Amino acid sequence: MENKYVYSFDEGNKDMKSLLGGKGANLAEMTRIGLPVPFGFTITTEACNNYYAQGKVISEDVVEQIYSKLSLLEEKTQKRFGDPQNPLLVSVRSGAVFSMPGMMDTILNLGLNDESVIGLAALTQNRRFALDSYRRFIQMFGDVVLNIPKHKFDHIFDSKKSEKGYSSDVDLNPEDIQEIIAEYKKLVKREVHRDFPQDPQEQLMMAVKAVFDSWNNPRANVYRQLNNIPGNLGTAVNVQSMVFGNMGNTSGTGVAFTRSPITGEKKLFGEFLINAQGEDVVAGIRTPQPIAELEKTMPEVFKQFTDTATLLENHYKDMQDIEFTIERGKLYMLQTRNGKRTAKAAIKVAVDMVEQGLIDKKTAIGRIEPSQIDQLLHPTFDLAELDKATKIAQGLPASPGAACGQIYFTAEDAVEAKKNGIKSVLVRLETSPEDIEGMVAAEGILTARGGMTSHAAVVARGMGKCCVSGCSEIRVEESQKKMYIGEDIYKEGDFISLDGNTGFVYKGKIKTIEPEFSGDFSLIMSWSDEIRTLKVRANADNPKDASIAVKFGAEGIGLCRTEHMFFEEERIPAVRKMIVAGNKEERIAALNSLLSYQKEDFKGIFRAMGVRPVTIRLLDPPLHEFLPHTKEEIKNLSEQIGIEYNKLSAKIEELKEFNPMLGHRGCRLAVTYPEIYEMQTRAIMMAAIEVKKEDKLDVIPEIMIPLVGAVKELEYVRDVIEKTIYQVLEDAKEDIKYSIGTMIEVPRAALTADEIASQAEFFSFGTNDLTQMTYGFSRDDAGKFINDYKNKKILESDPFQTLDTVGVGKLIEMAARLGKSVRPDIKLGICGEHGGDPRSIQFCQSVGLNYVSCSPYRVPIARLAAAQAALK
Amino acid sequence: MENKYVYSFDEGNKDMKSLLGGKGANLAEMTRIGLPVPFGFTITTEACNNYYAQGKVISEDVVEQIYSKLSLLEEKTQKRFGDPQNPLLVSVRSGAVFSMPGMMDTILNLGLNDESVIGLAALTQNRRFALDSYRRFIQMFGDVVLNIPKHKFDHIFDSKKSEKGYSSDVDLNPEDIQEIIAEYKKLVKREVHRDFPQDPQEQLMMAVKAVFDSWNNPRANVYRQLNNIPGNLGTAVNVQSMVFGNMGNTSGTGVAFTRSPITGEKKLFGEFLINAQGEDVVAGIRTPQPIAELEKTMPEVFKQFTDTATLLENHYKDMQDIEFTIERGKLYMLQTRNGKRTAKAAIKVAVDMVEQGLIDKKTAIGRIEPSQIDQLLHPTFDLAELDKATKIAQGLPASPGAACGQIYFTAEDAVEAKKNGIKSVLVRLETSPEDIEGMVAAEGILTARGGMTSHAAVVARGMGKCCVSGCSEIRVEESQKKMYIGEDIYKEGDFISLDGNTGFVYKGKIKTIEPEFSGDFSLIMSWSDEIRTLKVRANADNPKDASIAVKFGAEGIGLCRTEHMFFEEERIPAVRKMIVAGNKEERIAALNSLLSYQKEDFKGIFRAMGVRPVTIRLLDPPLHEFLPHTKEEIKNLSEQIGIEYNKLSAKIEELKEFNPMLGHRGCRLAVTYPEIYEMQTRAIMMAAIEVKKEDKLDVIPEIMIPLVGAVKELEYVRDVIEKTIYQVLEDAKEDIKYSIGTMIEVPRAALTADEIASQAEFFSFGTNDLTQMTYGFSRDDAGKFINDYKNKKILESDPFQTLDTVGVGKLIEMAARLGKSVRPDIKLGICGEHGGDPRSIQFCQSVGLNYVSCSPYRVPIARLAAAQAALK
Repeated sequence: MENKYVYSFDEGNKDMKSLLGGKGANLAEMTRIGLPVPFGFTITTEACNNYYAQGKVISEDVVEQIYSKLSLLEEKTQKRFGDPQNPLLVSVRSGAVFSMPGMMDTILNLGLNDESVIGLAALTQNRRFALDSYRRFIQMFGDVVLNIPKHKFDHIFDSKKSEKGYSSDVDLNPEDIQEIIAEYKKLVKREVHRDFPQDPQEQLMMAVKAVFDSWNNPRANVYRQLNNIPGNLGTAVNVQSMVFGNMGNTSGTGVAFTRSPITGEKKLFGEFLINAQGEDVVAGIRTPQPIAELEKTMPEVFKQFTDTATLLENHYKDMQDIEFTIERGKLYMLQTRNGKRTAKAAIKVAVDMVEQGLIDKKTAIGRIEPSQIDQLLHPTFDLAELDKATKIAQGLPASPGAACGQIYFTAEDAVEAKKNGIKSVLVRLETSPEDIEGMVAAEGILTARGGMTSHAAVVARGMGKCCVSGCSEIRVEESQKKMYIGEDIYKEGDFISLDGNTGFVYKGKIKTIEPEFSGDFSLIMSWSDEIRTLKVRANADNPKDASIAVKFGAEGIGLCRTEHMFFEEERIPAVRKMIVAGNKEERIAALNSLLSYQKEDFKGIFRAMGVRPVTIRLLDPPLHEFLPHTKEEIKNLSEQIGIEYNKLSAKIEELKEFNPMLGHRGCRLAVTYPEIYEMQTRAIMMAAIEVKKEDKLDVIPEIMIPLVGAVKELEYVRDVIEKTIYQVLEDAKEDIKYSIGTMIEVPRAALTADEIASQAEFFSFGTNDLTQMTYGFSRDDAGKFINDYKNKKILESDPFQTLDTVGVGKLIEMAARLGKSVRPDIKLGICGEHGGDPRSIQFCQSVGLNYVSCSPYRVPIARLAAAQAALK
Repeated sequence: MENKYVYSFDEGNKDMKSLLGGKGANLAEMTRIGLPVPFGFTITTEACNNYYAQGKVISEDVVEQIYSKLSLLEEKTQKRFGDPQNPLLVSVRSGAVFSMPGMMDTILNLGLNDESVIGLAALTQNRRFALDSYRRFIQMFGDVVLNIPKHKFDHIFDSKKSEKGYSSDVDLNPEDIQEIIAEYKKLVKREVHRDFPQDPQEQLMMAVKAVFDSWNNPRANVYRQLNNIPGNLGTAVNVQSMVFGNMGNTSGTGVAFTRSPITGEKKLFGEFLINAQGEDVVAGIRTPQPIAELEKTMPEVFKQFTDTATLLENHYKDMQDIEFTIERGKLYMLQTRNGKRTAKAAIKVAVDMVEQGLIDKKTAIGRIEPSQIDQLLHPTFDLAELDKATKIAQGLPASPGAACGQIYFTAEDAVEAKKNGIKSVLVRLETSPEDIEGMVAAEGILTARGGMTSHAAVVARGMGKCCVSGCSEIRVEESQKKMYIGEDIYKEGDFISLDGNTGFVYKGKIKTIEPEFSGDFSLIMSWSDEIRTLKVRANADNPKDASIAVKFGAEGIGLCRTEHMFFEEERIPAVRKMIVAGNKEERIAALNSLLSYQKEDFKGIFRAMGVRPVTIRLLDPPLHEFLPHTKEEIKNLSEQIGIEYNKLSAKIEELKEFNPMLGHRGCRLAVTYPEIYEMQTRAIMMAAIEVKKEDKLDVIPEIMIPLVGAVKELEYVRDVIEKTIYQVLEDAKEDIKYSIGTMIEVPRAALTADEIASQAEFFSFGTNDLTQMTYGFSRDDAGKFINDYKNKKILESDPFQTLDTVGVGKLIEMAARLGKSVRPDIKLGICGEHGGDPRSIQFCQSVGLNYVSCSPYRVPIARLAAAQAALK
């Protein structure tokens, strides 16, 4: 049997979305339940894929089936395509599985030509209406199908108005419109070297092709990338007989939500226009009236509409976004779909519907898009002020939230500004670990370079701080303390505002509004906690972040990085002294001076977390990250620690690496300098002993060894750590439980996870590094080509944001399986960026991890996503 | 049943090497076949491992078994340990599975003490002999068991001689020796705060413990590392009753090979000393006589010895290295083992024995150590001159051979020197791709930094050029054109000599000798070719290397890197222009000027290879590798190609990467700039067309795409290439067959090899990069910690030299399996450094690869290793 590529509206239902697209499936469903839907048919997404497979040709098969359904439509409507007496007119609309902007706009009134326009005039007894419909059709078709710039049509239209001295469109009389049509047709001929197509069947096929083509237009592509929608789904095409909202004052058109998409409040929300066609509402040429006003104008239609709206909401058990048209007092439903909503509305609607008994808790949880609730956790701009603000650049939306402050170009200056009570935005070419304190001090961070997972982006997200990264439009001259955007110069102290949700940079000040958490939000979170089986921990490096994590519901710390502690002003000299030490004794002396700092760090974190588990990762970055690089800084350090400039400079040079990512870091440092991990272990255990005594808190530290690639590495380092623990406990005559585990972030560790599990009580998947090494992508450098990869559809999504389940995931699955084969009760978690990504969390659930760990600000997202994962 | 830890000589045989060690197994074997071997027993390697497992304690078990075998020995010899009338004396020697230097020296005469020495004197009627034996015993025991510096004993001995005015040891009379013994015992007391042990059983246990300890001494460790011997094998200990070669002129001792270990010639080779103990031969105090002289001195013993030697050679079917002692006219065999031999001898002995019918070809092939034949393929120093030369430093033996020349510090200077007929040694801090031409021009390369797989090492090995890398003793000041070693300064033009086999650097000139290949060598190669199933290809980037590869027996090119071609002086400006091009048109223009160069390169290579397959890898390194970095160079380039300095400098800055290894390179370049691969593809296909026309040569180019991590990348790039091929063939109206494949060098490619195989006709495992990414080790940076890893026994061998079969190997095995599951006839090869490493070749065979590819100079090694792999 040949494939069925075209379905009449009475052949489908709401569950056929992947074939008919969202719009088509819902039109079929409304038809099925007896609602007044103008008849029509849907060309399937498979037809679209077929079109691309054939090299952008609509195959014979599909053409035939379209014509066959067209005949059926003519029969049902008792009209004929191109009939000069009683012409069938149709709308043609795209309808993908997920609705997305950038797809082809609707084409209305298709079927009109020089003859049928006369028929339409006669039939409606309204010549002006018929001619204006034709004019609109030529314009729309010319724009979206023939690719003639819209402004050229506008120019003809406006010239006619000014030539005649009219102020409004309605002043145009039939003759004027006929002249415009003539001009439009000339324009078409001039632009595309052919006459405007008069054959309605040809018009239809050209429109279908345009819809298919629009699937691959740049805007749709970008949207799909941003929303992680696969590129091979295709779009359907809906062909529907026209009804007219512009047939006088008993006609009209409108859109309405069954509840407020902004607040979630349970009342009709929408607007309508009398005597207008669909696009007039959206186009904003005339100001529509609130939907409630319809009750006064057409009380019966209003009642019918509200009943239908309620019926649809109860039928779909979700808030609906409905398009309707009234033709001479008769209501037609043109579309219904689940309404898009803000995070706030999503939560309120879900909670209300559970209380209403319409859906259960599980369904409610499934309805909320986890990534969306990020909006609720960060400051936002005051919308009134935002409307008036001037956009000056756009970068990547690296870390959500809104920030406003005065520009500073160095971390030191931002810290200084903070001391003086000045709110700052730190603007850098790119950030490095030395900038951490400046990033803490600033309201937001703007960088010219670096992707979504650059240092600035990762650290800012960890801090819950607004960041716009990779803003290539700006040119930063750090030495001059100036930023250039085109011709404009921004100096230190100038105000700018950043939107971390969009990546926009604005000139001047915009008021920000702090987030509030509603009771509904807590309810959704508690329902999520009931449902999910994955634990959710946070990545937190200090007591403050640990407290935030607990506030957001973290059940422990999955990753406490110890290196950020090393960068604090009062410690960094000792750290540097340790690094450039000439021998082990000097190194130990320097380390000893860091011991009490580290111990206090850990005590603070243990206290913030109470009985919740804390996984502490021992020192990871290469040592050169802690060293100064400019002559000036090296000179200062030389004086500070009393090592000759030349010697110091040579040492710093010697520590440089070609590929630091694959260099002397992680447990490799401990193999060379065991004393570093000894000091850290001592600090951890002493902290545990002291909080036990001082706070009666029984802490079970989880000590994590980074960058292990071979079991012997782990064995060696574990031995160093255990000897130290034994000694500390002996000295203190105390008994503290602990566990020792490892990051799985080197491919080899995953491949040999059975061996490694013999020495590790837990695995934590460091998916950032694991992705870097498995893909061979340097996170810091991938910005140079990753966009080409997306544009050329080689990558569907950024593997640093959403876990590559095929490649990296295979290693995780393998490691989890091998690890359990040796140690069935091994604890498995993930602490890379992916730990806060909903799709990746789904994967973590599927391979049997015990917990995910993410930045404190993503904990609520992870809780919800984990619940959704458990439901799947 | 309890473990058996001790075996009498009549309980074992030659096949028990892993338990008894090589020496013990052979002593047992000789006993078994009835040769005159002084009786004794062997403490097993398991006892050694047990010793370490118990925390360096000889367990009760083992002690008991030693005593029990000791009783048996007393019974057999009718002597008793410590008996003042008839004392049993023994030798104690280590005996590992593989013999290795640095293990404990032999201890002779153990069992002597103040009483038994009197018994020995009475028994032998030679008081001087007895006392001198005791003296020697104390000295040896003091040195190797008690760790008292040897020179302290020598000092006492020499003082006595000079005090007495003696010129020779033999002048010492019994009383003198007794005085020396007294002084020795005082020395022992002073040094170790105890009396010299008088109890023979205690002496024995201390000696056994010393042997076990010596297993882990630094020298033995280093030897094991260099020779890839695992550290957990343990050593056995042989305890054997003494016979004395120093009982007068009817006694003697000697060592002999059944054939010449230097040339392989079939005649006894060795030497002996009359009236001497074993170590005298080795110690070189007296000059031994050639073994042939023994016939004159003791014709009967000589005949017995030659018969025994022949018997042993026929028994073991290999050249033997034999130790013997003659005690009062009676011959005793103390040891036999397969003799170590030079590569030349190994080949001659193997071939001769096949001709003799003693062994078959397969056994012959198995006898030759593949890594050893490297010696035969490179120049060596004239040994007479080498003896007199002054060593000034030691680095890593990065690329074998010997080189002598005048120092130059830049590639340009080396090139210039070559033009002037000067032989140079290029001395650099480290090399980079820009230095290639200089490396070609120089006789040898010396670098201060970089490991065995640094750029210098890899490239030099590829060229078959002598290289010493990572020579940290030298300090290179490139700007001053000076090299410092300690206080000494070497300037441009000074002569030095490098030994790439040892890593030694010598002052001044040393004559080098070019290698010659014997007929036996060719025979061994042809036998290897009969046996092996793996094909052997070479990595060659130009016609010259291709010719060398063919000469060495390469069956194709497995890796033709195209980037080295880009560095040539006349091309590099166009390459740079291409890189800094502002748009696609400029880039294409620059590429077009490279096209004919590339085409000629490929034609040359095709011609050199004839019908043999050639795999060409398209451009791989990040573009910044081709750009200059110093201000001066950038300025020159700016003038050369007419781009403003600031703009050019900014562009170069922009191209810099944090981790170039994981950056914008390989096929990622082609995703961004398809035109680069288009040009290269065009050059390849045009070259194939032209050699077809001009040389009637039907070439089937294999086009290889580097750094693929995802099938979509390969799909995209393959499409670019195939479109180009189609166009070239269309234009030329020709038909050329080709295949397209990919490197498997990114872990993700291996993990998803089934997907990738759908788009690849062949896989070539790039194990250099695959190891880097799987281990997370940067080859260029690992030098900083890899020695710590070896010293701490975390790594048994350098994973860049010998394939890590556990981790990286798992990926290779997986990729081979997945690839074949989708494309059963997929061609599989390896082109990393490991392709020339015998142990890695064994692995390649086991996972079913079709070929290995290595540097031309390693092709013979690979052919032999492949034959051995086929035999296993």
